[in-house]
Amino acid sequence: MPYTRLMFVNGKFCKNPKLVTPEDFFSSGFNIPGNTNNQLGFSANVLNVDRIPGLNTQGLSVIRLDFAPFGQVPPHTHPRASEIIVVDQGTLYIGFVTSDEDGNRLFAKILRPGDVYVFPFGLIHFQFNPNPTPAVAFTALSSQYGGFITIADALFGSNPAINPVVLAKAFQLDTKTVKQLQQKFA
Amino acid sequence: MPYTRLMFVNGKFCKNPKLVTPEDFFSSGFNIPGNTNNQLGFSANVLNVDRIPGLNTQGLSVIRLDFAPFGQVPPHTHPRASEIIVVDQGTLYIGFVTSDEDGNRLFAKILRPGDVYVFPFGLIHFQFNPNPTPAVAFTALSSQYGGFITIADALFGSNPAINPVVLAKAFQLDTKTVKQLQQKFA
Amino acid sequence: MPYTRLMFVNGKFCKNPKLVTPEDFFSSGFNIPGNTNNQLGFSANVLNVDRIPGLNTQGLSVIRLDFAPFGQVPPHTHPRASEIIVVDQGTLYIGFVTSDEDGNRLFAKILRPGDVYVFPFGLIHFQFNPNPTPAVAFTALSSQYGGFITIADALFGSNPAINPVVLAKAFQLDTKTVKQLQQKFA
Amino acid sequence: MPYTRLMFVNGKFCKNPKLVTPEDFFSSGFNIPGNTNNQLGFSANVLNVDRIPGLNTQGLSVIRLDFAPFGQVPPHTHPRASEIIVVDQGTLYIGFVTSDEDGNRLFAKILRPGDVYVFPFGLIHFQFNPNPTPAVAFTALSSQYGGFITIADALFGSNPAINPVVLAKAFQLDTKTVKQLQQKFA
Amino acid sequence: MPYTRLMFVNGKFCKNPKLVTPEDFFSSGFNIPGNTNNQLGFSANVLNVDRIPGLNTQGLSVIRLDFAPFGQVPPHTHPRASEIIVVDQGTLYIGFVTSDEDGNRLFAKILRPGDVYVFPFGLIHFQFNPNPTPAVAFTALSSQYGGFITIADALFGSNPAINPVVLAKAFQLDTKTVKQLQQKFA
Amino acid sequence: MPYTRLMFVNGKFCKNPKLVTPEDFFSSGFNIPGNTNNQLGFSANVLNVDRIPGLNTQGLSVIRLDFAPFGQVPPHTHPRASEIIVVDQGTLYIGFVTSDEDGNRLFAKILRPGDVYVFPFGLIHFQFNPNPTPAVAFTALSSQYGGFITIADALFGSNPAINPVVLAKAFQLDTKTVKQLQQKFA
Repeated sequence: MPYTRLMFVNGKFCKNPKLVTPEDFFSSGFNIPGNTNNQLGFSANVLNVDRIPGLNTQGLSVIRLDFAPFGQVPPHTHPRASEIIVVDQGTLYIGFVTSDEDGNRLFAKILRPGDVYVFPFGLIHFQFNPNPTPAVAFTALSSQYGGFITIADALFGSNPAINPVVLAKAFQLDTKTVKQLQQKFA
Repeated sequence: MPYTRLMFVNGKFCKNPKLVTPEDFFSSGFNIPGNTNNQLGFSANVLNVDRIPGLNTQGLSVIRLDFAPFGQVPPHTHPRASEIIVVDQGTLYIGFVTSDEDGNRLFAKILRPGDVYVFPFGLIHFQFNPNPTPAVAFTALSSQYGGFITIADALFGSNPAINPVVLAKAFQLDTKTVKQLQQKFA
Repeated sequence: MPYTRLMFVNGKFCKNPKLVTPEDFFSSGFNIPGNTNNQLGFSANVLNVDRIPGLNTQGLSVIRLDFAPFGQVPPHTHPRASEIIVVDQGTLYIGFVTSDEDGNRLFAKILRPGDVYVFPFGLIHFQFNPNPTPAVAFTALSSQYGGFITIADALFGSNPAINPVVLAKAFQLDTKTVKQLQQKFA
Repeated sequence: MPYTRLMFVNGKFCKNPKLVTPEDFFSSGFNIPGNTNNQLGFSANVLNVDRIPGLNTQGLSVIRLDFAPFGQVPPHTHPRASEIIVVDQGTLYIGFVTSDEDGNRLFAKILRPGDVYVFPFGLIHFQFNPNPTPAVAFTALSSQYGGFITIADALFGSNPAINPVVLAKAFQLDTKTVKQLQQKFA
Repeated sequence: MPYTRLMFVNGKFCKNPKLVTPEDFFSSGFNIPGNTNNQLGFSANVLNVDRIPGLNTQGLSVIRLDFAPFGQVPPHTHPRASEIIVVDQGTLYIGFVTSDEDGNRLFAKILRPGDVYVFPFGLIHFQFNPNPTPAVAFTALSSQYGGFITIADALFGSNPAINPVVLAKAFQLDTKTVKQLQQKFA
Repeated sequence: MPYTRLMFVNGKFCKNPKLVTPEDFFSSGFNIPGNTNNQLGFSANVLNVDRIPGLNTQGLSVIRLDFAPFGQVPPHTHPRASEIIVVDQGTLYIGFVTSDEDGNRLFAKILRPGDVYVFPFGLIHFQFNPNPTPAVAFTALSSQYGGFITIADALFGSNPAINPVVLAKAFQLDTKTVKQLQQKFA
């Protein structure tokens, strides 16, 4: 396709309909555990429109989440999507927080295999594995590219860094601690 | 809530925000095999907004599909949703058909555990278990209430019945065969 | 326009606003009867965005339907549109079927000139001329490109064919009958 | 339905699905000429959601327009819809005007039976019968309730009246002429 | 970007995400009074997606309006947007008119600094400075490119001109007056 | 209106159109400085649909932000809106952070009176007054009720509290520090 790697639109350019194949709607490997050997102890296999071209205009993505013992997907948002999670193995402590107008209420629950939970559009949520055994979950997002904002990384690990004075005041930390955090998340 | 069982809106009335609990976003039992002991050999556990109130306005549903040996979800559409499927166990022969403008092309594939496939918005699709062992899949829909239209039932089992002359001509069957089918699907 | 015949987007590329003319919003011939001399006995003159460029982004199409005596538009869906029909000449037996959740109810009526009917978004519907005289209707769709899926063709005439076992089980036909149908619709 | 005549939502409340009948999607009389014996020489039979309950959520309306000799639908907009028109009888001089950014270009054409034209979303347009014989057209709008704003009435016949100084300056008329117009349109 | 000046899409092409800078979301000069030395006595500094590329897909624009003594933004619509206005300095007489179905009601008010008013989507509205001192207001539109249709210009100053007979009948003016107006607005 | 204080819908119930007055689209006091004598040193006067009923369905809100010397609106998101800000007085250091896929890039700038900036839909952003003099800004949101999530409050001040282990791991703080923060934000 001419220039489609040099040009950009909201979403994606489409493939020539005459050239579309069944493979464009397909992906595999969703049953393969991800590598959770990292600081947070989780991995995410994100099947969005970047991975499955046929998701273009379809308003969906799916993600496989693997959790090491005590691993977590830290507090995060999807700026452009709702989410629904299904626990496949193990146990997860999950929750979301409502907005300021609604009192920053925490809706949390312990989920076991077969449990399903909804994270409303754009709200902060997290998933934590409280057990010494792995956990696995599948989630769907209501967007082909809903986005992933890890709060701690976005705030303390932005590129370039946010002025530490702002973060210190916001989190009621001293500036020294903020700078240390920014070093860790750099 | 006064009258909300007697009044109807597009979607659902909301619960009083002050009375919402974590349970409103929760469901369980998604790991429990459904009963596939029926003519088609499948069962669907549909978690949409009727089952999880917290899905209201969130644009998502999830479904667990169980397949008996040689069972199938027969050709059907979701009039108001796209779908993405993940095979969890067993094997499925799946496919969707494009519209007339695109030549009624069949995009089909054999899926194995961990395989993922997209069924575009509103198109006819099916899932068939070609093996003598059960199969299980999870799907997500891009709507809180995307709808389910089983083609054969809608056409031959409508209530009341469609004039058999219409169906005979449409399917190039004789009227007698059509009436027999209508008896079966009544 | 450079490359717009080689590149594709959801919808259409726009013409240079400076080069747009009144003709881009115009079509003619909607009063000319179509040729209904075919197996189903109908013809459709579909004015969508492929025919009228000015329909791009406008969410509308119109269609002229001509029916031979006893002709029909067989059961079909528009995957991405609602429809409203106005009978201009003759008589039509029309109907739509609701989804499984709503019991596959048939809403049908005999329409005469000046009668108007709504086919809700994405539901299966049909129009049949029960008289030995022609009929004519105009319809509008709520999309610039709502799509047309003729059920019988999509199922029994897909390219390539759907595995006959699937269709046999779905329609409670024997495989031999299915294969015969697939020959007819090939 | 309790209180639905005393309560209002964006759109309409829905009927109880169990009580819906085929009549809810039906209207008639679209073939009956309207009475054009009025100052402007036109009549509009507007089938929107107020007339056909089944249009709720369906994004469509249809209108039958009758024109007396030299009658017109004066310049107007549909604030929430696009429109497509089909001429059934007679001749119409129609046009729409683009916005200021696009130079207030007039796209106009003489339409004859079978001609079709698009009026883009929210733009000012008009239809005028230049002949001494009646004309008839059908139009579809891309909304269940797209609205109708007759420019002259809205500006010179508002209730209460707009300060004449504003209109005088806007239209480069003297205040006396404006007040006379306001008397005519009162 | 190749060809993006020669090709057009609904909205805008996107910049390569890797090349986006903070300047793409920035504009300045919103505090600088505009030049109101013109016939209508107002100026509009419109910050829409043409001015701030980062507004692409964001559904917002802002406008600074300056009014000379007795100046006005004449009756106009935004075909694709709602508007909210904040008065910063001076006094404004503002109003909008509802559609024909709602009786062409005028909702008007005198606004002073700090007052805020809403102009609903697509309705005709105006702003007039009744005082011998300047006025300033800021408005936001619910679209990156909501459009601006000055009614008098669109009707009497279109290019080419609308047939004067149409306007004469619509506004109950004699054709001679209409032609004079068309000369003024040419 | 019967029961509208006891019933809830997505958005708001509408007022009876016959009872709507110009006041329903009006608010005042947007020129009055807010009280910034609080820990963060800012105040927000939020004119959304809760304050102006006429904003229902209109997709807009406006907010007046007052900043004390060195005050800030701490990092926050609007889960359902984009934002555009106009600086009226003083100086602001503002910025937003992109999502993880885009590298958590910080787009920041010093803004002076008349400067305008866009905060894309759902992304984390902040505004900080780096000067010993007050600052004032106006912002518009692309929603009648876009929501406000103050990150620090949502995470460390949720009700009930999030398990400190989760936050400690997420922010790479020790649990003791986390608990102290939770005490501060309780």
